[in-house]
Amino acid sequence: MKIYFAGAIRGGRQKVKDYHKMVERFQEHGHVVLTKHVADPNLTVEGSEVTDRHIYERDTKWLEECDLVFADITVPSLGVGFEIAYAENLNKKIYAVYEKDKGVSRLILGDTNIEIIPYTNIEEVLEKIDIICGGKE
Amino acid sequence: MKIYFAGAIRGGRQKVKDYHKMVERFQEHGHVVLTKHVADPNLTVEGSEVTDRHIYERDTKWLEECDLVFADITVPSLGVGFEIAYAENLNKKIYAVYEKDKGVSRLILGDTNIEIIPYTNIEEVLEKIDIICGGKE
Repeated sequence: MKIYFAGAIRGGRQKVKDYHKMVERFQEHGHVVLTKHVADPNLTVEGSEVTDRHIYERDTKWLEECDLVFADITVPSLGVGFEIAYAENLNKKIYAVYEKDKGVSRLILGDTNIEIIPYTNIEEVLEKIDIICGGKE
Repeated sequence: MKIYFAGAIRGGRQKVKDYHKMVERFQEHGHVVLTKHVADPNLTVEGSEVTDRHIYERDTKWLEECDLVFADITVPSLGVGFEIAYAENLNKKIYAVYEKDKGVSRLILGDTNIEIIPYTNIEEVLEKIDIICGGKE
C-alpha cells in the first residue's frame, strides 16, 4: 500500500518523534510512506528548499496516488486539515489519530467519513497500524 | 453576499479581535457572515455546546451556501485548512489573509486556486474587504 502520512510541519514539530514511530511501523509492514519527510526530525518548521507550488503539486499528486491517509491531528495544522478534506473528496480511506486530552477541531471530529481514533499512548496507535496492515507480522 | 469567514477556534483564539474587525467590515457593507460566531470573543477554545456532528453538518451546509470564503490563516487550524479544501472542491472563491511574518502552511501558499494576501496591518485587510465588496461605501 501507499500511505499518505499527515502531520504538522509549520503548525509545530513537537510530535515529530511520534510521527516517526508511526511512519516506521507502516514501513515495517512493507508499505511505502509517500510523505515520510513529515516524520524526519531534521525537517524544521522552515521546511525544505523547494517552492510552495512544488509542495502543492507533489502533495496533491500523492493524495491522488495513495491508498489511505493516516493523519495525526493532535497539533493544529492548516495543511493537515486541507489534506483531510482533499482526500475525502477523492474518496480515500482516512484515519485520524489524536492525543485524547487535546482539543482538536470539532468540525473534523464531526466528520463521519473519517475514522477517528483518540489515544493516550503511542503504543495504541502502533497497534492500530498493525491492524490496518492486516495484523502483526 | 453570504460570506463564510474562517478563523481558528481550537487552534487558538489570539486573533479574535482581528477576526471581529473583518466580520464587522463585511457586515458594514450589508453582507451576511454565516460564521460570525468565529469572531465572537465569548467563543473560547472549548467552543459551543452543540455536538461535533451538528458543527460538521452546519459548516458544510454553509460552505455550500456561501458566495465566498474569507479565511485568516495566521493561526494554525485544522478546521480552517479543512474548510479551504472543502470550499475549493465546490469551486468557491477563496481569500486567505495572514500576518506576513508568520510561517503558514506551504501547501496552502502553493495553491493557486486561493487568493492569498499577506498583511502587516489589519487596515490592509479591511481595505481588501472594501475592494471585495465593491469599493468603500
